[in-house]
Amino acid sequence: MKTYRDIFKWGDKRETIIDKGTITIIKEKFGYSDNDINQKHLYGEKEVILENKCCLGADIIEKFINIVGSDNLDTTDYARASHTYGKYYADLLKLRIGIVPTPPDAVIYPRSEDDIVKILEICNQHKIAVTPLGGQSSVTRGVETPLGGVSLDLTKHLNKVLEVNEINSTVTVQTGIYGPVLEEYLNNYGNKYSCGHFPQSFEYSTVGGWVAAKGAGQASTGYGKIEHMVLSMRVITPHGIIDTKTYPASAQGWDLQQLFFGSEGTLGVITQVTMKVRKYRPKQTKYASFIFKDFEAAVNAMRNVMQNGVGLPHLFRISDTEETEVAFKTKEFDGTFADKFLNTLGYKPGSRCLMFVAVEGSTSYTKQVISAVKKIAKKNGGFSIGSSPTKKWLEQRYSSAYLRDPLMDLGIMTDTLETAVMWDNLIPLWKAVRDYLKKREKTVVMVHISHVYENGANLYFTFLSPMKKGDELNEYAEYHRGIIETIQANKGSLSHHHGVGRTLAPWIEKELGTESIKIMQAIKDHLDPNGIMNPGNTLGLKP
Amino acid sequence: MKTYRDIFKWGDKRETIIDKGTITIIKEKFGYSDNDINQKHLYGEKEVILENKCCLGADIIEKFINIVGSDNLDTTDYARASHTYGKYYADLLKLRIGIVPTPPDAVIYPRSEDDIVKILEICNQHKIAVTPLGGQSSVTRGVETPLGGVSLDLTKHLNKVLEVNEINSTVTVQTGIYGPVLEEYLNNYGNKYSCGHFPQSFEYSTVGGWVAAKGAGQASTGYGKIEHMVLSMRVITPHGIIDTKTYPASAQGWDLQQLFFGSEGTLGVITQVTMKVRKYRPKQTKYASFIFKDFEAAVNAMRNVMQNGVGLPHLFRISDTEETEVAFKTKEFDGTFADKFLNTLGYKPGSRCLMFVAVEGSTSYTKQVISAVKKIAKKNGGFSIGSSPTKKWLEQRYSSAYLRDPLMDLGIMTDTLETAVMWDNLIPLWKAVRDYLKKREKTVVMVHISHVYENGANLYFTFLSPMKKGDELNEYAEYHRGIIETIQANKGSLSHHHGVGRTLAPWIEKELGTESIKIMQAIKDHLDPNGIMNPGNTLGLKP
Repeated sequence: MKTYRDIFKWGDKRETIIDKGTITIIKEKFGYSDNDINQKHLYGEKEVILENKCCLGADIIEKFINIVGSDNLDTTDYARASHTYGKYYADLLKLRIGIVPTPPDAVIYPRSEDDIVKILEICNQHKIAVTPLGGQSSVTRGVETPLGGVSLDLTKHLNKVLEVNEINSTVTVQTGIYGPVLEEYLNNYGNKYSCGHFPQSFEYSTVGGWVAAKGAGQASTGYGKIEHMVLSMRVITPHGIIDTKTYPASAQGWDLQQLFFGSEGTLGVITQVTMKVRKYRPKQTKYASFIFKDFEAAVNAMRNVMQNGVGLPHLFRISDTEETEVAFKTKEFDGTFADKFLNTLGYKPGSRCLMFVAVEGSTSYTKQVISAVKKIAKKNGGFSIGSSPTKKWLEQRYSSAYLRDPLMDLGIMTDTLETAVMWDNLIPLWKAVRDYLKKREKTVVMVHISHVYENGANLYFTFLSPMKKGDELNEYAEYHRGIIETIQANKGSLSHHHGVGRTLAPWIEKELGTESIKIMQAIKDHLDPNGIMNPGNTLGLKP
Repeated sequence: MKTYRDIFKWGDKRETIIDKGTITIIKEKFGYSDNDINQKHLYGEKEVILENKCCLGADIIEKFINIVGSDNLDTTDYARASHTYGKYYADLLKLRIGIVPTPPDAVIYPRSEDDIVKILEICNQHKIAVTPLGGQSSVTRGVETPLGGVSLDLTKHLNKVLEVNEINSTVTVQTGIYGPVLEEYLNNYGNKYSCGHFPQSFEYSTVGGWVAAKGAGQASTGYGKIEHMVLSMRVITPHGIIDTKTYPASAQGWDLQQLFFGSEGTLGVITQVTMKVRKYRPKQTKYASFIFKDFEAAVNAMRNVMQNGVGLPHLFRISDTEETEVAFKTKEFDGTFADKFLNTLGYKPGSRCLMFVAVEGSTSYTKQVISAVKKIAKKNGGFSIGSSPTKKWLEQRYSSAYLRDPLMDLGIMTDTLETAVMWDNLIPLWKAVRDYLKKREKTVVMVHISHVYENGANLYFTFLSPMKKGDELNEYAEYHRGIIETIQANKGSLSHHHGVGRTLAPWIEKELGTESIKIMQAIKDHLDPNGIMNPGNTLGLKP
């Protein structure tokens, strides 16, 4: 028996156990009793049985089977339900409750680009919605199928490394490949490489998803976002195939490839990309960690590093006061001798902030950058606490996301939101969004900066609060709306690297302006005249 | 009396005198006599009198005057002729011969963005062509007016710095501002900044031209091309105004701003941009120069610097064998003691190559990068020749372009072409294009690499050869066609930073593919439904 819980569990992971430190926080902040800690709220243990069955005619199904074979088409309830949602908080709530009103009619696993061309032809002819997807880690309802149709899952077959070019320092891959598979391949290839792109979703996301949603990895400060890494791509659209050439840069009219970064499946299926790789040499990586007296001082140090021509850290991160406090508690650092010592030096709970730094590259480069960061940190009142906090953070960097499920079992709402902002608006935006989030009582709000540029940075908000049981979906929708409105009113972008999907679509026109939305729609209408590509308001587009 | 020669002279510059070293080369390579050296071939001393007069009706002219005032509209022959061409070799030939068949009907100098909105409204209503322009340094026939109409010259009024934001490290400018005006402003503002963008055309080009043609400056290896520097912009199109917001990065659908980098006036008028600035600290800049035994060794060293995570040089340049030979001759280095010494070490004329390096940033950064470059150069057989060759090159870096006019006076064809290429295709492309160029007898071919990336670089070809007198235009067109075809057959891009214009338009569909051209046309048709923006085959677009 396959349950809803089987769907929202991460990959093959066993159930994640909440650590002792987090339990302490939950009890302290939310007033949870031992009993509360053992509850199984909306546990999702029901069998997946969908009310809406596949609506595609037998003739259409047969056509698809003729293309991909019967092994690569699945119309079972479980396959369809498990291809309906991503990993947005509301997606998980819906699965736990068992709400799947608009599953895809069929899940198809194309074996080749040629299969995709043929599938798109049929869908275009019959106006069947097509939603391309990879790891389904979208937190913006980007792979949802409000108009049903076909979910095109690239992870089963289109997941190969096609070529590594050591002279050009590039790799060409099929986009259904998962992050860890690509990275391991590169780590072991020839002179050893790394893809340099490590989003929080790394273990369960694909290259295609990175490109389609315009993602950023944890080393983005040094290596850039995915749009700075990909040199060329192939996209199969209902209008035809676009194959861009691989150049380091060019001036041949406007760069059409840019249309597909952030296209979120609305223009076509990105099947292949050639992207940069970097030398893999973890032993040369250098680390530093600092504690600052307050968030402003840490941000100032960070900005100075980015604007002083000292080279770039790859991982560069600040946890704000509350995130620092939670980190100290969960790591059971509170009350230790070291904690007391920091207190004596003036780095006090309630204002102090952690900074993590890692620099990749040649020995001389990493040494120089770390030394420059240390100087600037010191000048801004930062106290160096050695390399191990950053190393420890890196070791468990993907795990925090997996805590969400056991937290939700305890009836705790937990979600994240992120925005990009110029330096001069960063502190006001941080304060305004925190103030908004804190209006809800018993809410833990943790903020970090994790993607840093010369001219600004992102802010990443994580918040936890007991659910209002029985009204989980509505109350969250309302809370969420207020967050976005606060971000927008305070000059933050709708997204820095999660994308827009359907969750943020209601705000996109206000954000980009009506003229820009019209251009987007014109491009959409040209490439997808029948509106079959990921339809249903993705990016605010029609249909 | 205003002559054609007045048009093609660079700005207010007096006539450039050819240096002694170059005269020696001309005599040696082309067999020129003393008499040949004093000729004034196609001197362009005729008065500018156009056959085709302004075709706009008096009512239209009156409408324009009502917008901008009579001081800012010019229908004189000289104004119209001087707004017809850029600085392409064939442009200069045409001016020298006195061929100006399709001048604009009027030159308008808008005083404000509001003026531009109104002018575009009239032009859209009456289907009058509009060609926005800045410094007219286009070498791709990008500002030519085959359909006449209005040349919109932004340099007279829309040339202000609007804001410097020292926290964000950005400057907001009107796009008609010239490079040196912007740079001087920044050098003297607050904590002192630099725009970091120094194309060969710097002294006579504008920010708007940089963006519209997708330019690159001589420090691009460190700072990137113009599309990597501009964070937001305002564009006035016939369809409406697009104002993008200023973020360090974002994931809000595809980045529409990218449409306007390289749009070459075909979509609208770029009136304002916010771009990055960097700290101006010339005293901290470090320089190095090297000589390598051959081009391959120099390229290998360069590639290794870019792929080894040692940080980035800002200026990074290799002159190939013949360019090195010419540099040695023109700088009268040939036969000196130092020359003999290099010879003894095995750095021989006919194979040796120069490399120039400059690194900007903090003292520790520049020191570290220069030291890493030196190590890698040495490993590849490079011999360090100190900092002064690079410094000297920088001091005279804009001057070589101004030699073209006196060379053409001597009946010498001289043009440049550039391409981007991945590392593994660089040497074959270099050889193939050189071979093609050398098929023409008495041709000096100098090649350099001047914009360098992890995954490839540009190749910049400069060639000189005596004209076939009486058939200058045709014979050049044919020679030029062969160069482009050779580049395209050898996996080079049509352009790395000059743009496409009308000169390269015949090859763009082959380069980008039919599907891509259709997308470009769809975007063009949406933003400019009446086809008024820089029409006449710019970028291969219709009309």
